[in-house]
Amino acid sequence: MSSVEVRAQQPEPATSLIPTLPGAHYTDPALFEREQQRIFQKNWFAAARSSDLPEPGKFRTVDVGGESVLIVRGRDRSLRAFLNVCRHRGARLCMDDSGSVRRSLQCPYHAWTYGLDGKLIAAPNLNSMNDVNRDEYGLIGVALREWLGTVWVCLADEPPSFADTVQAAVSGRLGDGDVIEKWGIDELAVGRRITYDVKANWKLIVENFMECYHCATIHPELTEVLPEFADGYAAQYYVGHGAEFGEDITGFSIDGQTGFGTLAGVDEHHDRRYYAITVNPQVFINLVPDHVIFHRMYPMAVDRTIVECDWLYPQSVLDSGADLSKSVELFHRVNQQDFEACERCQPAMSSKAYAAGGVLVPSEHHIGEFRDWVADAISD
Amino acid sequence: MSSVEVRAQQPEPATSLIPTLPGAHYTDPALFEREQQRIFQKNWFAAARSSDLPEPGKFRTVDVGGESVLIVRGRDRSLRAFLNVCRHRGARLCMDDSGSVRRSLQCPYHAWTYGLDGKLIAAPNLNSMNDVNRDEYGLIGVALREWLGTVWVCLADEPPSFADTVQAAVSGRLGDGDVIEKWGIDELAVGRRITYDVKANWKLIVENFMECYHCATIHPELTEVLPEFADGYAAQYYVGHGAEFGEDITGFSIDGQTGFGTLAGVDEHHDRRYYAITVNPQVFINLVPDHVIFHRMYPMAVDRTIVECDWLYPQSVLDSGADLSKSVELFHRVNQQDFEACERCQPAMSSKAYAAGGVLVPSEHHIGEFRDWVADAISD
Amino acid sequence: MSSVEVRAQQPEPATSLIPTLPGAHYTDPALFEREQQRIFQKNWFAAARSSDLPEPGKFRTVDVGGESVLIVRGRDRSLRAFLNVCRHRGARLCMDDSGSVRRSLQCPYHAWTYGLDGKLIAAPNLNSMNDVNRDEYGLIGVALREWLGTVWVCLADEPPSFADTVQAAVSGRLGDGDVIEKWGIDELAVGRRITYDVKANWKLIVENFMECYHCATIHPELTEVLPEFADGYAAQYYVGHGAEFGEDITGFSIDGQTGFGTLAGVDEHHDRRYYAITVNPQVFINLVPDHVIFHRMYPMAVDRTIVECDWLYPQSVLDSGADLSKSVELFHRVNQQDFEACERCQPAMSSKAYAAGGVLVPSEHHIGEFRDWVADAISD
Repeated sequence: MSSVEVRAQQPEPATSLIPTLPGAHYTDPALFEREQQRIFQKNWFAAARSSDLPEPGKFRTVDVGGESVLIVRGRDRSLRAFLNVCRHRGARLCMDDSGSVRRSLQCPYHAWTYGLDGKLIAAPNLNSMNDVNRDEYGLIGVALREWLGTVWVCLADEPPSFADTVQAAVSGRLGDGDVIEKWGIDELAVGRRITYDVKANWKLIVENFMECYHCATIHPELTEVLPEFADGYAAQYYVGHGAEFGEDITGFSIDGQTGFGTLAGVDEHHDRRYYAITVNPQVFINLVPDHVIFHRMYPMAVDRTIVECDWLYPQSVLDSGADLSKSVELFHRVNQQDFEACERCQPAMSSKAYAAGGVLVPSEHHIGEFRDWVADAISD
Repeated sequence: MSSVEVRAQQPEPATSLIPTLPGAHYTDPALFEREQQRIFQKNWFAAARSSDLPEPGKFRTVDVGGESVLIVRGRDRSLRAFLNVCRHRGARLCMDDSGSVRRSLQCPYHAWTYGLDGKLIAAPNLNSMNDVNRDEYGLIGVALREWLGTVWVCLADEPPSFADTVQAAVSGRLGDGDVIEKWGIDELAVGRRITYDVKANWKLIVENFMECYHCATIHPELTEVLPEFADGYAAQYYVGHGAEFGEDITGFSIDGQTGFGTLAGVDEHHDRRYYAITVNPQVFINLVPDHVIFHRMYPMAVDRTIVECDWLYPQSVLDSGADLSKSVELFHRVNQQDFEACERCQPAMSSKAYAAGGVLVPSEHHIGEFRDWVADAISD
Repeated sequence: MSSVEVRAQQPEPATSLIPTLPGAHYTDPALFEREQQRIFQKNWFAAARSSDLPEPGKFRTVDVGGESVLIVRGRDRSLRAFLNVCRHRGARLCMDDSGSVRRSLQCPYHAWTYGLDGKLIAAPNLNSMNDVNRDEYGLIGVALREWLGTVWVCLADEPPSFADTVQAAVSGRLGDGDVIEKWGIDELAVGRRITYDVKANWKLIVENFMECYHCATIHPELTEVLPEFADGYAAQYYVGHGAEFGEDITGFSIDGQTGFGTLAGVDEHHDRRYYAITVNPQVFINLVPDHVIFHRMYPMAVDRTIVECDWLYPQSVLDSGADLSKSVELFHRVNQQDFEACERCQPAMSSKAYAAGGVLVPSEHHIGEFRDWVADAISD
């Protein structure tokens, strides 16, 4: 299937402009708080890479929906997640972003001690508190799933179906639930991680990622590798479509030449192509033949979002000591270009010129689905 | 007319104290937002000096009433003002305070391109959007007037009469609408510009400028040049009155000696005098025989105001390479002294001691008119 | 009386957990504002050490209940307190934390001049304001008391009884109103003052001070000196009880050896013991045989508290040139350990895990009285 054929399948071209969300959705702290509760606390949230926690006792703390969530690998090698709050007087159990403990999580204030499974196992004078039920005072658990080598957590008491949300987003984009397995993402290793502190609302970052109308203007290096992006049609517009590499391109890298060999599972049909997937509300997955770029967003305030981006390669590539810099540089520049664009939009969201929002051109129309998804999620 | 004669004309001296605005007017963010909408967006606002934009394509961006306003000189050499927001997805068109473009304003996000007259002239794939009316998607215009070499803008859909507001304030102070023409302000050039970032509410700065009761206390250099200011009577108290230079003073400068010759249009009656004019809500004009000092305020927050102050001289003085430093230094010190006083008041505005406001002594009574103007403007 | 005997007197041991204040009490700016008005403006507030103002004209400015309060020693050597706001246009009279004036307080804006007793004594042109009653425009006074060498102020129009509040707290803790006199605190001199800027709500600091359940975990040096603290029973749990020094301890100091001789008034019964007293809402007094450690808290925001801590010694000790460092170091470390614990709790107060608050173990139950005192004070 070539890109020409794909275009032959496109629906009657739309010619109108349709509205975006109103400006207040990007600037109002009360709406952000509502999103924290109704979007980020209710949905599965990609919180970390499983390999960030390689051994029992390793932990990470991440900000999810306004909560500090503590993820820790147990003695049984299982990962578990908890609210990072001691049940006694509310101290943060772990202040660092990551680290490791031995057999338990001990609060540094009064030494209440929890197992790595969250159970209260000891506290000074606890034995003299006859009527204290230890089960009642364990750490508050947070739902956790592992998929694609990623730790997904959900703060909701009754999390939505993982299959119907996260996995459906991926299969809906690739056309089939099995396709993503070709890249073997859970077996890949982190070759490079870059964390971006973006002064923009998280939805600007999603909307930016979902369309390629901006590619010709701000991504010269990317359009060199993926010439069809210069036409402005989004990689995510057509189910199953991946943007094809340019004729002379031999690697998804800043020089278009540096690759590390097609991943074992990637077939000819998916080789020499770039696939972009958005998993609402905060994950972007970028598939290329020899690596995967995985974005996790952490919304911190109505006008600030932390983005953690992993470049994932086979362990054998990392072991070989290969120079990843040209490979990483391409999407690092794309990230910088995109986030700068988002930061340029943020201050204008409060203008009366944007009170009713802006407009989406036809090649951006699919962003309307994201707009509606957000609006539905926060409506009463 | 000497200052003595003027005093003979003064009304029966008031002996009472009258109230200022209550403290909350200087500290409440909601009241500031109301002022942005009802004062700064509704009135003519001195946004820039026309000569800041000497050629086609030169632009400045300024903060007016909470909006970023983009002022640009067109190919036809006319100045126009727009909201600095792309109609497509809301990116700021220009992020810098000033700069220049060639023939158009192109949004750096998706390359929507506007003429210097604000019309949408191009966008990627625009031709395929058959039903998109380009006129509908031009930049949102802002009313603009030039007077006194100054660019005045108004965000209101129906701006008030320029003659009845800005020009009336000037003629009301000088006693005659033609008097201001004597200084030929539109022909003067910027010899020096100093920008002050003042941690005080804009009204404290206006109230400070309107009275001279503080001059003896904080302006030793100014009262040396204008001895009558030591008595505390405001330069703005009497229509048409200008404070007379001291006997030995030969220039309005830090040494009292440095002048550059009386401006061609200034007659004997107005020579050797200082005239201060307040144009609500954010302009101060200071007239002396050989130059003009022009303040434009940009309220940024309830407790922060940017003040841009221009020292204006004939082009011939600048061309002569004359040393302006002594001339500039006098009012630069006055500015520093005044703004420090305002910053000293700001933190006390929230005290219960100021909940009902402070008091105006008789020589400050005319500030009551400003107080009433503000109160009227923001009332329902 | 030994600590064993004291424990024999303890009531039937409680075995249950009781609730703390809900998390919002530590994070909601509106509740903090309510506390400012109903707690810090209504109660006696320890604002300074009398000896900070040794001579006429010496002043200190302190933040009390959201107000800047100016304390100044008059020509008659009496201390007085005023709101630090000029009655004319609201300028802060004194911007510095401390300093000295000569015979009067002159506003640096318009030179309104007040006696050290707060009376308006001069202002430019004041004589021409015939109907201005000078008494009406004096500085706004704040109630002031001196006790324990400390300046206590109260912003309320009708301050509560000093005896029934401040003094009752001290005698209630020590079992007798006269006991505190043994340390002769008003005669002691400040050997060292350390000011801490704590990123935590003031109530976390009070609650921390009131219990010793954390001592074993975070205060190794203190429990070395006071072994019974290792058991977690609060020094404040039993009326009249002071924690006994360890057998080998000869001084309340970081090495347990450095002391300066028991204060003249301290009898054998109170020697070799540590007494801790909380005076709601913002004072901690720590009594040891040879010195006194006196904490004054200044709540600045819902999540920020300044703590000023004085180490007080007899003047003769200071005059002797004795090295105070080991003596100061012990409680300086305790302060650092405690405030770090409070800062560890602050960010978790907004978690849904703490929405209903945490729990108090039996040895912390007396904190429930503080909890109820706060809740009562801010309720309608």
